[in-house]
Amino acid sequence: MTHPVLVVGSVALDSVETPFGKADNVIGGSANFFSASASHLAPVRVVGVVGNDYPMHRLEPLIKRGVDFAGVETADGPSFRWRGRYRHDLNVAETLETHLGVFSNFHPKIPEQFRDAPFVFLGNIDPRLQLDVLDQVSEPTLVACDTMNFWIESRRPELLELLARVDAITLNDGEARQLTEHFNLIKAAKWIMDRGPRLVIIKKGEHGAFMFTPTSVFFAPAYPLEEVFDPTGAGDSFAGGFMGYLAHTGDVSEENLRRAVVYGSAMGSFAVEKFSVDRLLEIRPADVTRRVREFHRLVSFEAEIDA
Amino acid sequence: MTHPVLVVGSVALDSVETPFGKADNVIGGSANFFSASASHLAPVRVVGVVGNDYPMHRLEPLIKRGVDFAGVETADGPSFRWRGRYRHDLNVAETLETHLGVFSNFHPKIPEQFRDAPFVFLGNIDPRLQLDVLDQVSEPTLVACDTMNFWIESRRPELLELLARVDAITLNDGEARQLTEHFNLIKAAKWIMDRGPRLVIIKKGEHGAFMFTPTSVFFAPAYPLEEVFDPTGAGDSFAGGFMGYLAHTGDVSEENLRRAVVYGSAMGSFAVEKFSVDRLLEIRPADVTRRVREFHRLVSFEAEIDA
Repeated sequence: MTHPVLVVGSVALDSVETPFGKADNVIGGSANFFSASASHLAPVRVVGVVGNDYPMHRLEPLIKRGVDFAGVETADGPSFRWRGRYRHDLNVAETLETHLGVFSNFHPKIPEQFRDAPFVFLGNIDPRLQLDVLDQVSEPTLVACDTMNFWIESRRPELLELLARVDAITLNDGEARQLTEHFNLIKAAKWIMDRGPRLVIIKKGEHGAFMFTPTSVFFAPAYPLEEVFDPTGAGDSFAGGFMGYLAHTGDVSEENLRRAVVYGSAMGSFAVEKFSVDRLLEIRPADVTRRVREFHRLVSFEAEIDA
Repeated sequence: MTHPVLVVGSVALDSVETPFGKADNVIGGSANFFSASASHLAPVRVVGVVGNDYPMHRLEPLIKRGVDFAGVETADGPSFRWRGRYRHDLNVAETLETHLGVFSNFHPKIPEQFRDAPFVFLGNIDPRLQLDVLDQVSEPTLVACDTMNFWIESRRPELLELLARVDAITLNDGEARQLTEHFNLIKAAKWIMDRGPRLVIIKKGEHGAFMFTPTSVFFAPAYPLEEVFDPTGAGDSFAGGFMGYLAHTGDVSEENLRRAVVYGSAMGSFAVEKFSVDRLLEIRPADVTRRVREFHRLVSFEAEIDA
């Protein structure tokens, strides 16, 4: 029943400072957060690149969870490193340094045995590379992509080309506004759907996430946490939960997509409880199930009553 | 079955400019928005003050809807007027002018026939006056209050005294943070509950509203509107829907409180579709029911499935 999910993205090292502490050179990058999250639900195949300085042994816990790094090549040079800081408002990351390293010459090569993955997530990389990946996979059931302000500015034509070829996009509210030049998120979502994707997921950080389809809107709040320790990777963990749940069930019906958004929100809420992928590697199936139930209770009410 | 609800607040005149147009000297103030909203669900009794310049005939549509203005005295002098502007981000009101007028010498006098109202809403006025009102009512089932940054700064002791005497408080996220000095809203809600109210409703504007009780959290998103025309009065319309629904049902169980929050959100979403109370006066019971159902569909998913 469970299908594999393929992710292309960064396998990086993060250095993060939050009001609660700091962590140096910990496992980070979109592909790692995605994998740590999705691996709770489906086998994960990763495509990416690391420098020859990357501490590969630290990926062991992920490999044990069924994450296959056969698509991650090692190139001469330094790994992708990001250094950032969050202050009081944990919704806003301040990037202090970004060193692309070997990532700047990255050309994704999908291993033969990865190409039939029915669920494909194109992490936040150059849209030209995201398009490259699409040329290498064979008729997936559902392809989702992520993007960011940098690509919206510098690779708009390629991004629009990509939109025409994906089923779904996840992006945050600021990016949706920047891409579409609509402040209103419903209008922004319609603009995007007009260009290809039939699913638009707009993430609002601590304010939850919308999923728009041509005929419906679904909203899932962020899980209200008393301590958000480190928001890094929340978006990719969300994507991992979403895609992982779809791969797990093989079902892309509206009802199941809604549940997938909630699984995404649940995994995102775990990710921010500790630095790096630490919390995602710690949780067990019962934790995930419990949190999904808590999400249900958080929003549930009966519309009909006669009092 | 339906019980009356008493509101104390401002009966004002607003002049508002939004990206979509402007309106001068239209019906405004917390008591008017509350009443226009709550009157869809329960009889409303208003206590307030207007100047002798107030266009009383413009309250006729509210009176026809069962709003009793017998507690609104007319004083010598100008009515309370507010002039404000919203730019692109409709979450942020820019106050251009506030003229308290006769409101600055307001001392609420609750008419004898109003004192037994089982549901009481203390709109955003001086906490000393809110306390005055509580001294004049007889054992209501549920008392809720609103407040704002100005009172949090200038009347903190009285506001704390008030908290010890109310069942519920509605305030926005910024106010909750200012009052409690907790950035995290769960912590802020706990801080408030420790001081009296067993219900804390924190409104986040377009990002929805939380209801905290000592044992639960409920979240209702804001209704995703393609056009938010004028956000003025959304909070008071929310309160009107919330209190009106409680008064309508006479039921303060957790399940019914959740539904009341959704009715609040529904009424808030109507309020912002036109200037002043215009849209609230236009809608019919079927519109309200339909929107509550749409809210249900917006958040609904099944947590349990075996695929």
